[in-house]
Amino acid sequence: MLSDLKRFIVGQPLATAQARHERLSKSTGLAVFASDNLSSVAYASEEILRVLLLAGVGALDLASPIGFAIAGVIAIVIYSYRQTILAYPQGASDYIVAKDNIGTLAGLTAGGALLIDYTLTVAVSVSAGVAAMTSAVPMLFHHRVIICIFAIGLIALGNLRGLRESGRLFALPSYLFIAAFAALLGVGFVRYAWSGAPAPSALETAVVPLMPLGAFLVLRAFSSGAVALTGIEAVADGVTAFKPPEVRNARMVLAVLGAIMVTLFVGTTVLADLYDVVPRDEETVISQLSWQIFGGGPLYYYIQGVSMLILVLAANTAFADFPRLAYFMARDGYLPRQFGNRGDRLVFSNGVVILAVVAIALVIVFQGSTHALIPLYAVGVFTSFTLSQASMVRRWLRTRPERWAWRVAINATGAVTTGTVLLVVAATKLMDGAWIVIMLIGLLIVFFLVIRRHYDSVAHQLSLDGLEPPGPMSTIVLVLVGDLHRGVVQAIQYAQALSPAAKAVYVETDPERTRRLEERWGKWGLGSPLVVLSSPYRSLLGPLLDYIDHLRQQAPNHMITLVLPEFIPARWWQQLLHNQTALLIKGAMLFRHNVVVTDVPYHLRN
Amino acid sequence: MLSDLKRFIVGQPLATAQARHERLSKSTGLAVFASDNLSSVAYASEEILRVLLLAGVGALDLASPIGFAIAGVIAIVIYSYRQTILAYPQGASDYIVAKDNIGTLAGLTAGGALLIDYTLTVAVSVSAGVAAMTSAVPMLFHHRVIICIFAIGLIALGNLRGLRESGRLFALPSYLFIAAFAALLGVGFVRYAWSGAPAPSALETAVVPLMPLGAFLVLRAFSSGAVALTGIEAVADGVTAFKPPEVRNARMVLAVLGAIMVTLFVGTTVLADLYDVVPRDEETVISQLSWQIFGGGPLYYYIQGVSMLILVLAANTAFADFPRLAYFMARDGYLPRQFGNRGDRLVFSNGVVILAVVAIALVIVFQGSTHALIPLYAVGVFTSFTLSQASMVRRWLRTRPERWAWRVAINATGAVTTGTVLLVVAATKLMDGAWIVIMLIGLLIVFFLVIRRHYDSVAHQLSLDGLEPPGPMSTIVLVLVGDLHRGVVQAIQYAQALSPAAKAVYVETDPERTRRLEERWGKWGLGSPLVVLSSPYRSLLGPLLDYIDHLRQQAPNHMITLVLPEFIPARWWQQLLHNQTALLIKGAMLFRHNVVVTDVPYHLRN
Repeated sequence: MLSDLKRFIVGQPLATAQARHERLSKSTGLAVFASDNLSSVAYASEEILRVLLLAGVGALDLASPIGFAIAGVIAIVIYSYRQTILAYPQGASDYIVAKDNIGTLAGLTAGGALLIDYTLTVAVSVSAGVAAMTSAVPMLFHHRVIICIFAIGLIALGNLRGLRESGRLFALPSYLFIAAFAALLGVGFVRYAWSGAPAPSALETAVVPLMPLGAFLVLRAFSSGAVALTGIEAVADGVTAFKPPEVRNARMVLAVLGAIMVTLFVGTTVLADLYDVVPRDEETVISQLSWQIFGGGPLYYYIQGVSMLILVLAANTAFADFPRLAYFMARDGYLPRQFGNRGDRLVFSNGVVILAVVAIALVIVFQGSTHALIPLYAVGVFTSFTLSQASMVRRWLRTRPERWAWRVAINATGAVTTGTVLLVVAATKLMDGAWIVIMLIGLLIVFFLVIRRHYDSVAHQLSLDGLEPPGPMSTIVLVLVGDLHRGVVQAIQYAQALSPAAKAVYVETDPERTRRLEERWGKWGLGSPLVVLSSPYRSLLGPLLDYIDHLRQQAPNHMITLVLPEFIPARWWQQLLHNQTALLIKGAMLFRHNVVVTDVPYHLRN
Repeated sequence: MLSDLKRFIVGQPLATAQARHERLSKSTGLAVFASDNLSSVAYASEEILRVLLLAGVGALDLASPIGFAIAGVIAIVIYSYRQTILAYPQGASDYIVAKDNIGTLAGLTAGGALLIDYTLTVAVSVSAGVAAMTSAVPMLFHHRVIICIFAIGLIALGNLRGLRESGRLFALPSYLFIAAFAALLGVGFVRYAWSGAPAPSALETAVVPLMPLGAFLVLRAFSSGAVALTGIEAVADGVTAFKPPEVRNARMVLAVLGAIMVTLFVGTTVLADLYDVVPRDEETVISQLSWQIFGGGPLYYYIQGVSMLILVLAANTAFADFPRLAYFMARDGYLPRQFGNRGDRLVFSNGVVILAVVAIALVIVFQGSTHALIPLYAVGVFTSFTLSQASMVRRWLRTRPERWAWRVAINATGAVTTGTVLLVVAATKLMDGAWIVIMLIGLLIVFFLVIRRHYDSVAHQLSLDGLEPPGPMSTIVLVLVGDLHRGVVQAIQYAQALSPAAKAVYVETDPERTRRLEERWGKWGLGSPLVVLSSPYRSLLGPLLDYIDHLRQQAPNHMITLVLPEFIPARWWQQLLHNQTALLIKGAMLFRHNVVVTDVPYHLRN
């Protein structure tokens, strides 16, 4: 029943041999890996404007130059990552790149930063997508948190069904989004050239500047806009998800992705500047812009619809990346082994589930506000960018392939650029929430190291190295008898099958009951001796433990097998009507060496 | 550590042989069993006045005659129960009396009614006690629910420590309470005789009648006051808790108890009537009365203090009775067996704990309001009174001892009286909450019968009657191997100790790993054959289950023993870092016949 339900939701299991066929074509791959980047066009411009607005409406004109600066950073980072793909054709997470070329600590820092980043990607994208929806349908604004939760659940489900189907599901909206924004930009620029800027609204003149316009505010606006870069690393991470030739396809997708992203992001930012859009809480900048350009017609709702769709689906990049990174880290022993299990559908199900749970928690805590989540966002991304680029520099210096000096120059430019952005982001967003992420990265590193130490210690303790195969073992078999019934008789039979010398043990709480048991023992004991332990305090456990400890001392080289008769009711609730003695005994024996507890189930019919 | 904590809280365990010494003397017994009855003096009069007030201040004068009527019922019931003690010197719950003399269904009705009644006793008494406290210290009124919860927890704890200590703890407040109320009545009547009634307060004249004074309202007031009778059955129930001669002591205590109760209850009711007290939400009637009689001096606070104390402690009667009744019903198979276990301190701990939990839930739901709980209260009590008295009539008619006609007359009077009160209570309180209790009694009866049917069915299925001892059993021993380490080698050794023909089973998910395992098997397999099962879907469980089902078909008369190597980490959280495969396998095997799963633990040091 339950497993039928799972089949219905998750789909039929796939064989390991099918893994190769689950690959992405270039066009599908672009859609899957791009959704995160492209979708940030829907909010990155707005985040720049929101910061500038603090210095008054006049400061908003700075959005365009800041947009161009960010576009420059995007270009540098894309170019750098195309190099990484060449160096790591098997796919290389920043975690692996940093670990291989700098060291464990750098790798774990990148890994922690990325795990946090992926989680925030889900929360931010879904929140922004729902904001696009509530801009168009304001009555849904109060239900935004529950809509976010529903959307995250849906994406997680899609991912539990497997990668190719996710690709298919997400290809169409990505292309619809590109078409929609191309139309917005085209019509927007043409109308501006034709009829000039609209008249300033009443709202615009009502804004009171809260702080002076200085270098700090400009840098803060830049930091906010830098969230546009998140997700670029995903393509380098997932090279093997492409159809062969993987490296070529991945590099081409990354280049095309960069070109589209820069065009849309810069275009939107400049257009918002030209149209004098002022950010507001209840309506997104894109919504205001497309309302001005298209009016309230079907094209407006189309823009809002695909923005929402791509933003909600953008979370999918993270749902592809988080479980994969968790798998790599689990394989290296830095995360619990469970993240290394592939599910029935060739997906790392545990990673998908935990990502969904944490992202939902974030959405609830931050009440589905994109704006509140943004300050936490960029620190993680730029930490892993910087570590990854610096690693590549070290790699070229060590391996010295052809044109190594040129490669060093490219990646060094990338590292310096992203490192500078990281410092700017950390400095300008520290008190807004970046401190949480910095602290969390530190805690995660400690967590990774503790886990790894445990696994190392277990491996060492279990290792057979230098040992010789042991001789045969002997076991003393006891069967615990509380009463005489079919289940007990079966357990006595079983104990005798394990060892002809099996003994029965009975804990006496009432001499009268002992007498009655002894009377029937001749017939039903099947020839086994009966050991009676007295219990003045009516405790079953105390005398039994004493007896077993006594045996362990007497025969320290024997394994003691304690057979427990247990009857299994036909329905689960009936279990509650019986004493949970077996559980108690197992708990007490768990930490005793050389004791094995064996339940012999007797199944009841109803 | 945990068990030390339990010792500290609950006390050292007591041997069964000590049970006899935990008996109550007459004076302690009076205090223990009376607290419930005497304490109702603190609220029963008030409940009468509250109902009468609905018809205006003028109607309050009817309180005295209603009080006398209830006193008459008390006298009849006490007299009847003294007979029950004679007939059941071993102690007889109404449940047993009704079951023995009328039948199972009557017994279960009485049992269900009493369990509900005991639970309400705890909730009502504690709520009323806290009301006495907040009358004197109004600033605590807002914290009443948390104070109630704390008080219930404290009483439960006292009871988990055992009966005699509970007796000691509760003896003093009962006597202090009797002295306090004797003083209140004495001074009150003398002052009234000396200076007459006080002038009516402003409040009194402000009350607007809500309904006309009719027979229904008078009967409703009577029903409310009838809660004074709760707990009378407790003495008959607990005869064996007294020191020998048990019957004589119990009957004497019951008589004295009745005399004190009637005096205090009638005295308080008449006094409230004479002093024209008008009930209010924030202050109890007793508080108003003693303020008028003693002024705000130490005697006022003394009255409030002991009222609070005895009310909170009154719940103790229920804490003595509920677990005992649950024990009787569990012994007969109508409640889960766990209620039949005596704890370390000779107390039926499970009953104490569940009573505390349900009573706390009631206090939370009804926000610690005595008044809101009262309508639920009397139905259960009078149901069991009536059934018990009717049972005694049948018993005398059947056994015909000396003076049987006189005994029949007494108990028939009791039955008719309590039966009439039951009808009045049910009719006048039906919509105020009595319907909940009536429905609950019905549900409990169904619950009892379902449990009993299950136990009967289990006993039948496990019975050895008519069977002959079976012949010897054979077992096929398998050991599941996932990897090769010390824990696995130990498990192979163990499997070979159980059966020289033990086989190892390995589920292949990756042919490369199988090859490596097979290479090392020569040295570490200790001579056991290795069975490799292929798993195209990477599932461990599927192929294993198929293989075991195949063996079960091949050898239907063999027991299959599946040995699982398991390493036990030194700290509990480390367990989370390992796959819970063993648990999964055990779950899957639980409902398969003829399969025994055995964990062989290998203990890690750190």
